Amino acid sequence: MALFANEEYIDRLNRTKARMGEAGIDVLVSSDPANMNYLAGYDGWSFYVPQCVVVSLDADTPIWIGRSMDVAGARHTTFLPESDIIGYPENYIQTLERHPMNFVGDVIAERGWGQKTVGVEMDAYYFSARGYAELQKHLPDARFANADLLVNWVRLVKSDAEIALMREAGQIANRVMTTAIDRLEPGVRECDAVAAVYQAQMSGTAEFGGDYPAIVPMMPTGEKTSAPHLTWTDAAYENEQMVNLELAACRHRYHCPIARTAYLGKNPPAKLVELAERTVEGLNLTLEAIRPDMLAEEVELVWRKHIAKFGLEKESRIGYAMGLNYPPDWGEHTASLRPGDQTVLKPNMTFHMILGMWMDNYGFECSESFRVSETGYETFSSVPRKLFIKE
Amino acid sequence: MALFANEEYIDRLNRTKARMGEAGIDVLVSSDPANMNYLAGYDGWSFYVPQCVVVSLDADTPIWIGRSMDVAGARHTTFLPESDIIGYPENYIQTLERHPMNFVGDVIAERGWGQKTVGVEMDAYYFSARGYAELQKHLPDARFANADLLVNWVRLVKSDAEIALMREAGQIANRVMTTAIDRLEPGVRECDAVAAVYQAQMSGTAEFGGDYPAIVPMMPTGEKTSAPHLTWTDAAYENEQMVNLELAACRHRYHCPIARTAYLGKNPPAKLVELAERTVEGLNLTLEAIRPDMLAEEVELVWRKHIAKFGLEKESRIGYAMGLNYPPDWGEHTASLRPGDQTVLKPNMTFHMILGMWMDNYGFECSESFRVSETGYETFSSVPRKLFIKE
Repeated sequence: MALFANEEYIDRLNRTKARMGEAGIDVLVSSDPANMNYLAGYDGWSFYVPQCVVVSLDADTPIWIGRSMDVAGARHTTFLPESDIIGYPENYIQTLERHPMNFVGDVIAERGWGQKTVGVEMDAYYFSARGYAELQKHLPDARFANADLLVNWVRLVKSDAEIALMREAGQIANRVMTTAIDRLEPGVRECDAVAAVYQAQMSGTAEFGGDYPAIVPMMPTGEKTSAPHLTWTDAAYENEQMVNLELAACRHRYHCPIARTAYLGKNPPAKLVELAERTVEGLNLTLEAIRPDMLAEEVELVWRKHIAKFGLEKESRIGYAMGLNYPPDWGEHTASLRPGDQTVLKPNMTFHMILGMWMDNYGFECSESFRVSETGYETFSSVPRKLFIKE
Repeated sequence: MALFANEEYIDRLNRTKARMGEAGIDVLVSSDPANMNYLAGYDGWSFYVPQCVVVSLDADTPIWIGRSMDVAGARHTTFLPESDIIGYPENYIQTLERHPMNFVGDVIAERGWGQKTVGVEMDAYYFSARGYAELQKHLPDARFANADLLVNWVRLVKSDAEIALMREAGQIANRVMTTAIDRLEPGVRECDAVAAVYQAQMSGTAEFGGDYPAIVPMMPTGEKTSAPHLTWTDAAYENEQMVNLELAACRHRYHCPIARTAYLGKNPPAKLVELAERTVEGLNLTLEAIRPDMLAEEVELVWRKHIAKFGLEKESRIGYAMGLNYPPDWGEHTASLRPGDQTVLKPNMTFHMILGMWMDNYGFECSESFRVSETGYETFSSVPRKLFIKE
């Protein structure tokens, strides 16, 4: 049984079809696992083989196409009728002789859509260069159009049912961050602190469990804080060091990312303490400035003006849309809080605002995941916004 | 500092160049994160943006090309000289105006390779349809060839240093499986059992920590055992039920997968107990049959003959090459233990042999990760091969 009511999927589908119509796309082949989940409810760790959901303007419900052994999983998790759950045989797997996208092309042709305009997600994870070529090969009379991010933009405004899951993720995120900060101590191995974080992510709360976040825990310290995507080691945390914590919680694939900085030791540098105060002040006042109908770039401007008072600037964006997702990224790749982004904020858009300020040999970061509310904003988690000093 | 000695990377490179030469490829663009790690040492959770390692027949060392903010991570983890670690600017990220693969094309052209034959991994994860088109756009005079799995095949025979890491992964795998079986009890929520597994995966042993496996823990029970890629829920395990455990441990990206079946309750069905005995007997004798110079398909035949005695057959392959990897899959997509695979087994090839027998409403699975040794085989973990009955 799908996670949400059928009406919710039908509404998602109608909004997707409207965008397809605007883009001149008749048939959409969506391989992004988050989009497959959004459109059909499908949720499984099967995106390591080609699979997709096909939406056609002239069909009421989408088609799920995946590996035969995953048909049972599609029956469990989607709202689709049996006739629209189609498995390709095992001999399509990992061979040069044929490709699952040949099979997808054949299904599209059989449904009578072989001469239509077919939209594909040209830059989506798990839609490969070969997959595209093989799909074209079996649809020689179709026109192809880039439908990259088309569904992602439909996902931007969440339903109340989606927001409810993000609030639950927020409650788990509180436990995740608190666990991390509790566990951090000089002498504790990075891998053991990370193990405690994972434990908290999955066990969730007494009322509901957690799901795997789309990105692994990042808890770098020392010189590795300058290399943001290195993962943990066996080394022990040291005294008088800063640790950046970029973590998340996930509930039914809906995320609440959260970032904080901790300092292990009695003597945090005065400049770090000062940077933390200024950054948190900026985070607070930027969040407080949020209103529906504001532009995404206007939110960033509030922050930029604040830190300019201290002669500082931050080059990268300060936030991005997020919600439903799968590895390797929880970001939706649509709206960003940055100069030039003229997305108009609407209630139930959800963002991760992350303010990271990096100096030569120290830095501080603090973030909130929030929805735009009817009057301002609502954060999903409630961990104090501050530099955590562990003496 | 890279994980292995420079000589090991040079050897990998030479073997890769030999295959490139055979395939008529002058310049290889490898985006598969495992191949990037193998060729250059690079290890970071940055594969959610386009990145690659470029190997040219006429260059001594590869080039790493990635996002600017990941250059520090490349300095930390690769053996490459500073001149061969190249970051693309932030304005290449997530925009329709330009693409990181344009930048990669420009670098290749600048090095004087713009008219060469360029190999790309057409079906690799994280090399998108658009990435390929954009690379072609900036290399208009190049010829393109499919180099899919070229490096994967080079990875097939492991070095002793790699085997040492897989043995460590095996020690962690013992703890992971033991923890899972200990934690499984009627009334325990699936998410809590999974949380304990994650904890064991990362904390590893007292001597060394664990790394994140390429696939999440799979511990389905009840009717979900027929849907192999659904992940856990909040539901509690029930009494008198079977649980399939498909788990793994990872050490510096090297995996040891391990699968077992547990039965919760005092009354395992007699047919399940019998199936377990026959499957384990088959696993034992198939492993014992392994010798260097045997063909991969001959290994499978040993198993097939064994279960045919009981009127059974297994449709899918019984094993596959694995080792170094990243999400979403730890399999190497090269040699498989299945009919028709004529790969000649050599010492230090490493496989996961997984025997899963699925009947209408029950089933049993048991697996071993092993290397082909000079005289037979060596398993990496040492969990008893049996049906675990938890009364």
